[in-house]
Amino acid sequence: MEIKVIKVGASVFEENEKIAEEVKKFLKSRGIISFNFMGSPGSGKTTILERTVSLLKENYRIGVIEGDIAGSYDAKKFEKFKIPVVQINTGGACHLDANMVKSGIENLPVKDLEVIFVENVGNLVCPAEFEIGTGINIVVVSVVEGDDKPKKYPLMFKISDICIVNKIDILEFSDFNPEKFNERVLSVNDKIKIFNLSAKTGKNFNQWIDFVKNSVKR
Amino acid sequence: MEIKVIKVGASVFEENEKIAEEVKKFLKSRGIISFNFMGSPGSGKTTILERTVSLLKENYRIGVIEGDIAGSYDAKKFEKFKIPVVQINTGGACHLDANMVKSGIENLPVKDLEVIFVENVGNLVCPAEFEIGTGINIVVVSVVEGDDKPKKYPLMFKISDICIVNKIDILEFSDFNPEKFNERVLSVNDKIKIFNLSAKTGKNFNQWIDFVKNSVKR
Repeated sequence: MEIKVIKVGASVFEENEKIAEEVKKFLKSRGIISFNFMGSPGSGKTTILERTVSLLKENYRIGVIEGDIAGSYDAKKFEKFKIPVVQINTGGACHLDANMVKSGIENLPVKDLEVIFVENVGNLVCPAEFEIGTGINIVVVSVVEGDDKPKKYPLMFKISDICIVNKIDILEFSDFNPEKFNERVLSVNDKIKIFNLSAKTGKNFNQWIDFVKNSVKR
Repeated sequence: MEIKVIKVGASVFEENEKIAEEVKKFLKSRGIISFNFMGSPGSGKTTILERTVSLLKENYRIGVIEGDIAGSYDAKKFEKFKIPVVQINTGGACHLDANMVKSGIENLPVKDLEVIFVENVGNLVCPAEFEIGTGINIVVVSVVEGDDKPKKYPLMFKISDICIVNKIDILEFSDFNPEKFNERVLSVNDKIKIFNLSAKTGKNFNQWIDFVKNSVKR
């Protein structure tokens, strides 16, 4: 399957909210459940998505939108799954915005889809400020980043519905304290749901997969 | 020593270049060598700085400027060294700019200093676009982030003089390929100097310390 590469400029902030609302309504009207994966470079967003798609692709109709500053390095990783993938290049911009995601959706065969996974630009700051119209916001943190992240980047944890703590397979080689981390996340957002897993080894991955399955309307 | 907390707004891009030039000239006129630490959240910027300061503080007159969105969590880690530290709060902005650093410098006892370390906001994208007037740009990457970062965030590697590959103590538990990484970094910037070290265990740290020592004009 050929990967579509879209280059789009960033829309202004006020307009963004309006377009995000349109995107949200459109996806809702189609019964499509959608996820916005955010987090630092190297937190493991792509690896989580790859494992998720590999486990669900037989039974669910999935589309992926990959957001990167340049290139289609990540989008290519989904070619093997033979699902529709759109690569968005932000051309330097540090986050996706609603207009970019709208263009991405227009380039997906939406009538055949039940789930859309969007991977935002690797950045723990800026994507939190731009609503993109997807249903479920996810922040991915790896244990190696340290347990102080909710204190230093509170907005990202505040606007997220889900927090995935990744790379628990190397927890013992890090200084990450899961209790301290959970406490810090919950002090910012007491409604957030936390998954601890390893996308590399698959440890605890089924809990996350069950959550996605339960989110799909059938 | 009390930590000064400064809250400043982001300056516009054009003005930024002008102020950066002023800062650069000022530091040069004083013979102060300065470093701008950039990199993703959790790459280990603060830990590198802590070990660096602990090794150099007896023989060098050091000041630190900590850049964070909110709080003074990192600045507090330098209290034990009894050196002058200024915390800059960007109030949401995803990077330091030259005006913020200028304010930081104005709050340091510059006449007593030879070295200023600036830690930028944790972000592999935005700080690369804003010159802050310091002499040496450093990008910190931890092995756990993956060896594809220069491909996905090329600007950061292009504008950096030094690349510190951190957390080599857990290299064997990561998929990081040092040869591939170096090749990718050098394809973006063939003048960059790469240090592989562990700020946690101190492995290879002396090479970096020697570099800092040799940079100081005496």
